[in-house]
Formats: sequence, structure tokens, C-alpha cells
Amino acid sequence: MIRPLLLAAASLLLTAQAPIPPATISDPGSVIATAPDADWREIETENLIVFETARGRLVFELAPDFAPAHIAAVRSLVAQGRFDGGAITRVQDNYVIQWAARPSEAAAVPEPLPAEYERAAEGLIFTPLGFTDPYAEAGFINSWPAARDLKTKTVWLAHCYGMVGVGRDGPPDVGDGTELYAVIGHAPRHLDRNLAVIGRIVEGLDAHSSLPRGTDPLGVYATTAERTPITRAMLAANLPEPPRFQVMDTASASFVRYKAARANRTGFFVRPAAGLDLCNTQIPVRRMAPGRQSLR
Amino acid sequence: MIRPLLLAAASLLLTAQAPIPPATISDPGSVIATAPDADWREIETENLIVFETARGRLVFELAPDFAPAHIAAVRSLVAQGRFDGGAITRVQDNYVIQWAARPSEAAAVPEPLPAEYERAAEGLIFTPLGFTDPYAEAGFINSWPAARDLKTKTVWLAHCYGMVGVGRDGPPDVGDGTELYAVIGHAPRHLDRNLAVIGRIVEGLDAHSSLPRGTDPLGVYATTAERTPITRAMLAANLPEPPRFQVMDTASASFVRYKAARANRTGFFVRPAAGLDLCNTQIPVRRMAPGRQSLR
Repeated sequence: MIRPLLLAAASLLLTAQAPIPPATISDPGSVIATAPDADWREIETENLIVFETARGRLVFELAPDFAPAHIAAVRSLVAQGRFDGGAITRVQDNYVIQWAARPSEAAAVPEPLPAEYERAAEGLIFTPLGFTDPYAEAGFINSWPAARDLKTKTVWLAHCYGMVGVGRDGPPDVGDGTELYAVIGHAPRHLDRNLAVIGRIVEGLDAHSSLPRGTDPLGVYATTAERTPITRAMLAANLPEPPRFQVMDTASASFVRYKAARANRTGFFVRPAAGLDLCNTQIPVRRMAPGRQSLR
Repeated sequence: MIRPLLLAAASLLLTAQAPIPPATISDPGSVIATAPDADWREIETENLIVFETARGRLVFELAPDFAPAHIAAVRSLVAQGRFDGGAITRVQDNYVIQWAARPSEAAAVPEPLPAEYERAAEGLIFTPLGFTDPYAEAGFINSWPAARDLKTKTVWLAHCYGMVGVGRDGPPDVGDGTELYAVIGHAPRHLDRNLAVIGRIVEGLDAHSSLPRGTDPLGVYATTAERTPITRAMLAANLPEPPRFQVMDTASASFVRYKAARANRTGFFVRPAAGLDLCNTQIPVRRMAPGRQSLR
């Protein structure tokens, strides 16, 4: 909405002003650029899955603290090659892309999985967002967007842009990991606690959120020809050179500064929002060398 | 995220249950389908602009209560043919698409426009959302997503998915209408009250939100060849058969039911959210016959 070429100029002007006292609000980009290494956590290679499609790579970080049985099922399907020859079957505008494993006679899981839609808060550190939320108490757990209920002492992952969940049929089905979806629109938070959220896309979503929308109900492609094939899926740990990423530690001082900077934008902005929505926080993720920085 | 073909079945099962008492929560689709005509307002033809691009039509509803000078400038540019030969110059993932009028020696407006980023609340009916919001008091004005500040007695339009604003340079520039953007990601509400929001896309956004993302900073296309040309833009009132749309009246009883249904989903949902975010409300818009129903 800005005229982009002029933003750079505005940004330079800002930096050229008198030195900013450390405690003062900075801009989000500067906070990211100056955050010390200690304020990032490296994403463990064992928690990365790489889907290769006709559009490029989708790199997917798993969140095993939240849905371990669903994640074990997905890991197993990937290891068995069940996603090789799968496809993106659905793209619904302002909602989700959905992809499926190759059909098989073999059941994906021997028994129905547990309904891992939320979990006990115990054992996890919850950092509140610090602003109100229309659905629950919003915050962050180990660099994931999350919410909690103090009465039931439960926490869950939030359906923010890029978050990945396990498709399912109507209840009591809980999904078996053969269908996955990623959010590509305004956060459908009404899905929170209704499906197993198992991670997020950390790279490549932009090449897939731009796929043509399906024209059947719910954005399903009307023909198989419209589907984007998944050539193969791999556990990153099995790659000769696994991609490496860092995510900002949401319990760090840098993240406090980052949130403040997102809530109180300067420079281009004439009126800071003085507020921040959980899914508009956009937890910084960056690729580690070599390669370009994260674009999240 | 559901397995779409089975949703239909689940939905049928639901409808086949015992009759639902009228006061009970329904599903959002049923509320839309059964809302009486009186609970919709037709979008005035004079408030519609049609942009024709290589990807199809973008139909744009203006909100003249909120930024009349910016809207007058855009109407004038369209009438002068300044958008014919323009282009979509920027697509940034989870943020905006932006399009520009054809460059010209002639100034778009003789004098800088006023900063129409908010306005006096007086004279407009504000219907509260009924749920908390991290930025302000959220609600609706004449079927627009909006917010208000009771202290300053001001209201403004919210940057929800599909909303359109006027690009500008750094302050004190306020834009002249030659650059427009539409939200295609999670609502960037930090932009509220920082730019002139002038309306929303009511049809065709799905064919444009799926454009390839630009690879220069801020999603700007690196080459002119990547741009999507705008073949022409027209005031709908000048078309032989203007498209017709209805938007649900946000002050109607149907909209109260719709919000309740969005906040308390049934059927597929095992745990209703009991909450609703302003930009996840998705005010129903539908095309009037002939043609298919709304795509929002």
C-alpha cells in the first residue's frame, strides 16, 4: 500500500535520525536484524519435512509437543513414501491449501489416533501476547502461536497463516495424517481445538498460496489435471544437506521488542496501532546460511 | 481441512436431524440461504467500479461515507481512462496486491487530498461485533467492517481480507488514487487509520490473490513483464449491464444470527469457538441473478 520504492527512502531517513535509545520502539525489521543469536532457536532437523511439488519446496516444521500421535503418523507416512505421488487437491481462497497422500489399500494408522486438539498446559511455558483476543487468551509457546484456557489448564496451537493441520472427516474421526492443510488466509481461529494442528510451513508457502483456486465447493479442484503433484516428501534428516532455519524465541527480550515494534509502527505510520493480533504478530523465521533470509 | 466430499454428507446428516428451533444456532450457510430480502442491501451501481485485467474482472465496491475525496479522485481517474493500460505491480504474500494507473504527466488531483483515515462517528450507525478486539472496539457500519473510538468519537474501516485502500508515500503524503491495494492475507490491522480505505473487492479477488508473488522487496515485481495488465477500468454505471450485488445488512436480525452461527459452529465442529474476530466474520456478499452466488 505504500509506494514500495519510496519506503526504502523513508526507512533510510529514519535510520539517519539521532540515535534511538535502546529502550525506545524500533521497527520490526531492525529488531530482527539486531536480535542476538541467543534469542533464536534453531529448528531441529528431525522436526522438518520437505515436500517437493511441481511448484517447488514446501518446508514444514513439526510441533511434536502438541500432537505427537498425529505427527508420528505423518512421519511414518513420509518415511513409507506415501506422499510421493500425492497431490495438492484443494485451494480455497482466504482459507487453506490441502494436500493428500497417494491413495493406498493400506491403512495409514492401525487404530484411530487420539483427538489431539489441545493439551495440558503443564510443562510448557506460555508467554502472553499482552493484548486481548476474541477467542481465548493469546500467546506463544516455544515460538508457536498459541492460546490457553486457565480454567481447564489447557493450551493449543492457533490457526494462523502458514500453520498446518490434519484433515479429518466429521466427528468422531480425528484424521490419520494422509490429508494435511495449511492456512493461506485470514486466521480461521474457529478451527482451533477442532483439528490437530501439527506445525507450520517455514518456506515455500508463497509459491503454493498462489495456486489457482479450485472451483468445486470448498475449493476442491474439479479435475485431477488441476492438482499440483507432490513428487516426493522427505524427512529432512535423511537429506544430504538439510535446510536449516531459526525461529525467534518468543520468550526472549528480542521478541518483547519485536512485539512492541509491530504494535507501534513508526516511519511510514502516522498513528501506531497500540495493539497487536496474535496472527498478525508473524513470528520471525529465517533461513540459516547459505541462502536468503526468511520472508515471513 | 475437512475431507471436502464428506462434509456434504455430514451436512446432510445434520439437516436430517429433528427440526431446529428457530432461536437455536444454525450454520452460517443456512443463515445466508434463508435471510429475507429485507436483510440485504443492494450495492448501488454508482458505487461499483469494474477493473478488467488479464486474469478477469475485479469488481470493487466504494465506501463513500468514509473517504469521499479519495473516492472522487478514483472515480475521476477511472472516468478519464487513467487505469486503462495500468497494471498490477505488486503481490506480497499474506499481505496485499497493488495496482497502479498508467503513468501520466498530468497530476491526478490538483491539490493534496485530506487525510481521510478516520471520520466522525456522528451520522453513522455502528453495530458492535460483540467480541473483544486487540486494536479497538470492533463492529460494522452499513455492512462494512469497522472500528470506533468512543473517546475521540471517530470511526474507520478495518483492513480485512478484500478491503481496498489508497497507496501513498511517507507522510505527509496521503495518496492521490493512482495506486490502490487490496488485502490478500491476514488482516493487517496496523494499517487502520494510516491510509485511506475506500472499499472492498466483491468479485474476482480469488483470481488475483493467486497471482505469483513479486520477488523484489515488498512483493514488487522485479520486471514489468511479470505485471498483470489492466486492460480497462469502468464505472459500472456506464456499462450496458452492470453487475448487481447484495451485501447482508449488518444491522439486521439475519446478521445477528449469522454472527452467532460463525461464533458457534456445529456439525463438523466439536468445540464451538464462542468467539469471533472482526475480519473472520466475512460479511456475506452475493451476486444477484443471473450468475452464481457470492464468492466471499
